[in-house]
Amino acid sequence: MHRTRVRIVEDALDANNTIARANREDFDRNRVTVLNLMSAPGAGKTSLLERALSDGPAGVRVGVLEGDVQGSYDAERLASVHVPVVQVNTDGGFGGECHLDANMVRSALPALALEELDLLVIENVGNLVCPAEFRVGEDARAMVCSITEGEDKPLKYPLMFRACELILINKLDLLPHLEIDLDKLLYNIEAVNPDAQTMLVSASTGKGIADLRRWLGDLAASGRRPLAEVPG
Amino acid sequence: MHRTRVRIVEDALDANNTIARANREDFDRNRVTVLNLMSAPGAGKTSLLERALSDGPAGVRVGVLEGDVQGSYDAERLASVHVPVVQVNTDGGFGGECHLDANMVRSALPALALEELDLLVIENVGNLVCPAEFRVGEDARAMVCSITEGEDKPLKYPLMFRACELILINKLDLLPHLEIDLDKLLYNIEAVNPDAQTMLVSASTGKGIADLRRWLGDLAASGRRPLAEVPG
Repeated sequence: MHRTRVRIVEDALDANNTIARANREDFDRNRVTVLNLMSAPGAGKTSLLERALSDGPAGVRVGVLEGDVQGSYDAERLASVHVPVVQVNTDGGFGGECHLDANMVRSALPALALEELDLLVIENVGNLVCPAEFRVGEDARAMVCSITEGEDKPLKYPLMFRACELILINKLDLLPHLEIDLDKLLYNIEAVNPDAQTMLVSASTGKGIADLRRWLGDLAASGRRPLAEVPG
Repeated sequence: MHRTRVRIVEDALDANNTIARANREDFDRNRVTVLNLMSAPGAGKTSLLERALSDGPAGVRVGVLEGDVQGSYDAERLASVHVPVVQVNTDGGFGGECHLDANMVRSALPALALEELDLLVIENVGNLVCPAEFRVGEDARAMVCSITEGEDKPLKYPLMFRACELILINKLDLLPHLEIDLDKLLYNIEAVNPDAQTMLVSASTGKGIADLRRWLGDLAASGRRPLAEVPG
């Protein structure tokens, strides 16, 4: 029975990768770099994007694809910083899925003027498990880890922490009020993903936002990787 | 294609409910009341259980089933407060699932001396989506919502907030340091689940822990519902 379950999961991931490659071809044709941004619910993805995109990165035309089970609260927040936003709800014909997959992203592409973008940020559904398993055609993956979640999250959700090039450690402003050992969190991240870049940030105070903005600008400028690297 | 996906999900939930009923029969035979405890990653399920179970509820024999994708960090923490704990890892033959299902719980039952328990707390995988969809044979469902996650979570994850009789609003000690509007969070909870009981708690300061302990004691004493109420 477990074997069957794993087989079904593998088939679903194969089908997903086929659509992810089609997305990637569309992104490549339009010279758009794509970032898949993930986190647990409430870690601060939208707040960080509000801060980072309200004033840059300079010269980079950014769009956002918002993934949520229901609602368009985050899309409305981001529209107010004047970036083009399109909302995908996973319960609108997609069974209320806990993650974005390549087909859901594909369904949103007609609503995006890709030729007018340099960088597309895909804000995934808040979840530390399944979003890491589904490529959507992205160039890079980043996650937000709030220090309120505790030091142990890299050890409990290693696939997510391993999947990302950039790990934004958010809500640094709360550090004096928490029992968390920040060094231990960094140690645990290093243990599961020694190649990841980490960035200490606070969407509330603005700490680290300039670094994030620079990272997004660099990604848009040089982040294009050859199509062959999308898992086939 | 979407129709097929929904059909597959329904079949999986039917199969799950059959096993959930078998679990329920085992729980009933042994007169164990079962609570399914859910939350986003890092909301404080384990910390609240540590606090509540280290000193009661009086006269209630409590056991814990720990669900995680990987690792046994929470099980070790709870073993230190001297309650029997069994760990289920969803990646050990279960494909790294983002939730516990009835079969995973069933696989752990032989490791639990049910006849020696009055209350079994099942700590689910940290996730605000899928755990709400899978009954495991429980009598009651509770969730932990950390105020660090923002006011909007009931609106973005309504199925989870609707599935629970008790909503523990945790990390109240951080309220002075956050921008969150607590009344708005309570309003949003009321909007999606007017029947839910809410409890303001802090695992750090102990606020509300006596109330939680009393609730667990009442559940163990009177929480048994007729078997027919498990969805068939």
